[in-house]
Amino acid sequence: MNVSKAVLSLVAALLACASAAPQDQPVPAPPAPQFDLLPVPATLSPAQGKFMIDAGFRAACIGYSEPRLDRALKRFLLRLQERTGIPLTVGPSTTTGRAQLEIRCHGAGERVQSVSADETYTLVVTPDRILLDARAPLGILRGLETLLQLTDLDRGSFHFPAVSIEDRPRFPWRGLMIDVARHWQPVEVIRRNLDAMAAVKMNVLHWHLSEDQGFRIESRKFPRLHGEGSDGLYYTQEQIREVVAHARERGIRVVPEFDMPGHTTAWFVGHPELASAPGPYAVERGWGVFDPCMDPTREEVYAFLDAFLGEIVPLFPDAYWHVGGDEVNGRQWNASARISAFKKRRALKDNEDLQAYFNTRLVSLLTKHGKKAVGWDEILHPGLPKSAVIQSWRGQASLAQAAQQGYAGILSWGYYLDHLRPASFHYLVDPMGQRAAALSEKDRTRILGGEACMWGEYITYENIDSRIWPRAAAVAERLWSHETVRDVDDMYRRLDAVGRDLEALGLHHRSVYPQMMQRMTGTDVPEALKILGDIVEPVKQLARGRMRKYTSLTPMNRLVDAVAPESDRAREFTRRVDLALATAAGLAQQAADLRRWLTLWRDNHPALRLVLQDSFLLGELETLSENVSLLANVGIQALEYLESGRRPPETWSGEQAALLQRADRAQAELLIMIIPGVRKLIAAANQRPTPLSSPGENAASAAQRF
Amino acid sequence: MNVSKAVLSLVAALLACASAAPQDQPVPAPPAPQFDLLPVPATLSPAQGKFMIDAGFRAACIGYSEPRLDRALKRFLLRLQERTGIPLTVGPSTTTGRAQLEIRCHGAGERVQSVSADETYTLVVTPDRILLDARAPLGILRGLETLLQLTDLDRGSFHFPAVSIEDRPRFPWRGLMIDVARHWQPVEVIRRNLDAMAAVKMNVLHWHLSEDQGFRIESRKFPRLHGEGSDGLYYTQEQIREVVAHARERGIRVVPEFDMPGHTTAWFVGHPELASAPGPYAVERGWGVFDPCMDPTREEVYAFLDAFLGEIVPLFPDAYWHVGGDEVNGRQWNASARISAFKKRRALKDNEDLQAYFNTRLVSLLTKHGKKAVGWDEILHPGLPKSAVIQSWRGQASLAQAAQQGYAGILSWGYYLDHLRPASFHYLVDPMGQRAAALSEKDRTRILGGEACMWGEYITYENIDSRIWPRAAAVAERLWSHETVRDVDDMYRRLDAVGRDLEALGLHHRSVYPQMMQRMTGTDVPEALKILGDIVEPVKQLARGRMRKYTSLTPMNRLVDAVAPESDRAREFTRRVDLALATAAGLAQQAADLRRWLTLWRDNHPALRLVLQDSFLLGELETLSENVSLLANVGIQALEYLESGRRPPETWSGEQAALLQRADRAQAELLIMIIPGVRKLIAAANQRPTPLSSPGENAASAAQRF
Repeated sequence: MNVSKAVLSLVAALLACASAAPQDQPVPAPPAPQFDLLPVPATLSPAQGKFMIDAGFRAACIGYSEPRLDRALKRFLLRLQERTGIPLTVGPSTTTGRAQLEIRCHGAGERVQSVSADETYTLVVTPDRILLDARAPLGILRGLETLLQLTDLDRGSFHFPAVSIEDRPRFPWRGLMIDVARHWQPVEVIRRNLDAMAAVKMNVLHWHLSEDQGFRIESRKFPRLHGEGSDGLYYTQEQIREVVAHARERGIRVVPEFDMPGHTTAWFVGHPELASAPGPYAVERGWGVFDPCMDPTREEVYAFLDAFLGEIVPLFPDAYWHVGGDEVNGRQWNASARISAFKKRRALKDNEDLQAYFNTRLVSLLTKHGKKAVGWDEILHPGLPKSAVIQSWRGQASLAQAAQQGYAGILSWGYYLDHLRPASFHYLVDPMGQRAAALSEKDRTRILGGEACMWGEYITYENIDSRIWPRAAAVAERLWSHETVRDVDDMYRRLDAVGRDLEALGLHHRSVYPQMMQRMTGTDVPEALKILGDIVEPVKQLARGRMRKYTSLTPMNRLVDAVAPESDRAREFTRRVDLALATAAGLAQQAADLRRWLTLWRDNHPALRLVLQDSFLLGELETLSENVSLLANVGIQALEYLESGRRPPETWSGEQAALLQRADRAQAELLIMIIPGVRKLIAAANQRPTPLSSPGENAASAAQRF
Repeated sequence: MNVSKAVLSLVAALLACASAAPQDQPVPAPPAPQFDLLPVPATLSPAQGKFMIDAGFRAACIGYSEPRLDRALKRFLLRLQERTGIPLTVGPSTTTGRAQLEIRCHGAGERVQSVSADETYTLVVTPDRILLDARAPLGILRGLETLLQLTDLDRGSFHFPAVSIEDRPRFPWRGLMIDVARHWQPVEVIRRNLDAMAAVKMNVLHWHLSEDQGFRIESRKFPRLHGEGSDGLYYTQEQIREVVAHARERGIRVVPEFDMPGHTTAWFVGHPELASAPGPYAVERGWGVFDPCMDPTREEVYAFLDAFLGEIVPLFPDAYWHVGGDEVNGRQWNASARISAFKKRRALKDNEDLQAYFNTRLVSLLTKHGKKAVGWDEILHPGLPKSAVIQSWRGQASLAQAAQQGYAGILSWGYYLDHLRPASFHYLVDPMGQRAAALSEKDRTRILGGEACMWGEYITYENIDSRIWPRAAAVAERLWSHETVRDVDDMYRRLDAVGRDLEALGLHHRSVYPQMMQRMTGTDVPEALKILGDIVEPVKQLARGRMRKYTSLTPMNRLVDAVAPESDRAREFTRRVDLALATAAGLAQQAADLRRWLTLWRDNHPALRLVLQDSFLLGELETLSENVSLLANVGIQALEYLESGRRPPETWSGEQAALLQRADRAQAELLIMIIPGVRKLIAAANQRPTPLSSPGENAASAAQRF
């Protein structure tokens, strides 16, 4: 609502880049007033005035209440205190008088939160009071997050702008999957990520607890599971209960995943008798798809799983249980004469049939223990009970296919955070898009939502937050807000605000970057390193694994591990280049800033070299840094051609094409993200003096090919 | 040991200030190799080579062991992992082979750590192994901190430099007092400050638990104490036990303070019968010395204290108990006819005698409960048992006086962190200085050490770390290292490294600054605001309380609360000015950098104004920012006169004196710390063309008067 915020952000961006000459910054016209809410609510009507926040602020539950609501209100007040620095009365109020924030909940929620739980709320802020109203506690939790996001300040005070909001989610299943098996994630990482999920109204933690690389939960019945399969890095049952309770407090369901029959090496370290080939087995250190697989032909395996479920199921009250089911390569099955004989005997024509047999047995065990199954899309096969939920990861088609066959489904294709694609990519993937768009009305209701997935090969407990946030918030909005909410620029504006909020909430996604750079140098972060780090991104999708041999013991302490998955600075540069190339006025407006940025990048290399040569973690950046300098220099030349209206000589154009090709390859597993902008400048310069109608050639670069 | 670190720091500083033109930075000559250890060990001999740290690093206790040592080793490995990003085997090792780090402890320590506990250790690092040897666990704890501080990196690896260290403390009592009563400090604040204390080898947490403004500990016997005297902000007994255990794990004693008979308003809210005047009482919100005071004449008061001690003493195993005893204004006593009659009856000639009577009774209760007393220097009076320890806060004289009278003492005068004086000030205050220097050998042994004091009027749980650290580390070194270790520049160099380490350890002293600035703007921190914030400091000593009315409910969310107590940037500027004015070569060397900095400051105001006008928390900075701009402009002019050798006209000199006088007053409770440097430049310009032998007039400014 603060009309000057966007101005300030722009000024800040400019100043950060050219602090030596702030006096000649252009001041853009202030945009229309806007809210920083993410996800965007279903309906919002701004009103006149604002509610001032001061030390006298009081809040009270005036309708139905329960301890969970009282605690939520207390957390709200503490966070409001942190957002303003104003000491608020958080404990039982010692004052008299009516509360200005009235929380009216109409009744209790479900004892165990279901997928169809009511999250609706209305929030009305007027200059002298605030009413938050909901049928059930979940709606109150969601509304309190909205109210916090409304906190603003201006030249008068901290305040909430007057507004009227009616809100409910578009999809009921809005999840985040965290793989804690490939790299261990301590319980505080899970706890703070639950806090972040709640802040953007996500409601399912899908907890990937077992893998070839680790079995991450204590089993008292089978202590060799975690005892030999986890390197000592597992959650105690007490910690599991704590996390589940922490999630429930925030209106988040917890769906555990025990991936099987593949991805199960860690089970076999202590229990080789479950495998399809004799052991011994060791905890897997590498990444990929491995052969070890449960033996679907032996009754002892089902007896074991029955007993295991009997112990572990009570820890997870949710109705759903994730069975995994992905990436069974079948090698152990093919190699076993006994298993081949079993297939023949049962008329199972291939390994898919064999896995279907396993799944049928497994799902019936789950039914016995009161759970419905979720599985990756490989589990979709004839005979799968209709209560199962399909999680599509190999494409959107399987989601539509499952819905047509009568299965509920959630989308994860397009939401793989570990691919390190930009928020804009994830944002525009819609569970109802592609083949789902053609579904019947009835089939459409089976699409429950989606889950962002954080796979664990290239993350550690240090940098995981920065791989999840703020990009997961773009997925959160896709799953909560109306499908027509698709303005990418506006999303980025709000994502930036959410990013700040989450760091204040205790997430580390921003602070890890300077901290890790500091460690690489052993000093305060040299500005030159930050200048480079700000405009590079890690390679995308699965490229990293092809560049060097990684295992779970490889240190993740290089620049590629520190920088954000998405460069805000480079995105802004590209945007400015587009403005400069769109019209002659745009060029006149942007040229000075573009030149200042390019000069900064061009001149950074000599200073950075001094830094790089003293740390074994930084030496690999030399070529990258030099390429940035060369690219920036070419960008400046292109800008000069554009401004002068002269056409560059053929030789120049050829040289630049060669440079672009050279620089547009990953170095130190990093991509230079100013390349698309520089490429556009060069293309435009080459086209001159033709009119400036096109934003330049859009040749795909490595920095764009994802 | 990394010879290039100092170079990097300098480069970083320069770049941070003038990032647009990094290519023309001067590269200072590399200094001699040096260690970043703080406190400096008793003896250190560098050796050849280094011990490389990799994922194969193993450590083991090979001598006496106890769970505390195992846990300390585990923490050490986790921190080493965080310092390097190298995944280390932290759990029970699954590998065979000998550990490279051998920890040899010769025997158990004391069940309750005493003031004379043995903290000696030797640490020998060679290229292929490390031996840490100590007679008792405390020495191992200290040595592990030293080893962590030795961690370094260069172009080859992370490593420990080969070295041989024998170390022991100069003083046995090296404390930090934290006032959690005036502003509440949650238990995690205490916990992380204990971690920081251990990192710089401090060994006493003096926990100021009761005050006029709050009674901060749960009493089950007298639940109205915390129930009515704390606004709900108190430590449960379970939390107290946790903190005491956390401290013991780190070799830190915990001495609780229940200040009496004054500073006791919060007791009286629930128990007015303890006071010297009838109630009712309310929790005090203001700061200062207040009238409410325990009634020393009534037996019921001693019976109450006896019962209270009976309950609370078992929570604190330490031999000492702090009785406070400071600042009794006597008004309630004077106003009571009954108390006057008591004094007359007992031949107590004044209130000091009456307080002595109270103390005698109190100390005998403590003796009954197995505790020795510590008190502020007001408790020193005839008849005080010789087992008592005097804590000198009103000057160093009382420490010497107490020692001469046979009392042990600790120094806190000169170590008041809440006065926000520079680290260099605290660093040079020596418990054996001033009158103590003249003590006999025997009397000198009674001086046990000292305590840095963090009083709570102007801190919150947000910024307390930044008010304690890193300055408390300068006190830690004074109390641990040899008295001849007094090189202020070297201390600052190492303090900077410690500051980084502590932030990585979980302290917030650095991160709070950008976080609070972000809150003031509602955006990412504008560079212009940081440029100002980097060169101002809060007003010193008790000045703040004279500038506006503060209470415990006043928001502490302004720039004065966010900026560091000491401006590193301004200190560096002054140092460069001194170099420039020392010789003609110095001027030639420094002029370009000085001009660049001054230009940055001069030109900052227009950009900053845009930021200031949009936030009610920033508007107050307008004059301050303008003055910085004017001062910097004058600095540039002075530099021009100096370089040209021309003498400025009389009018110029007069104008500048007026400006300096105007700017050298607190604005928004902040001081401009570039004033001393600018003043020197002006003075030197006025003196031209006389030779450059003097570093200029040293007229005291507000920025220096503390």
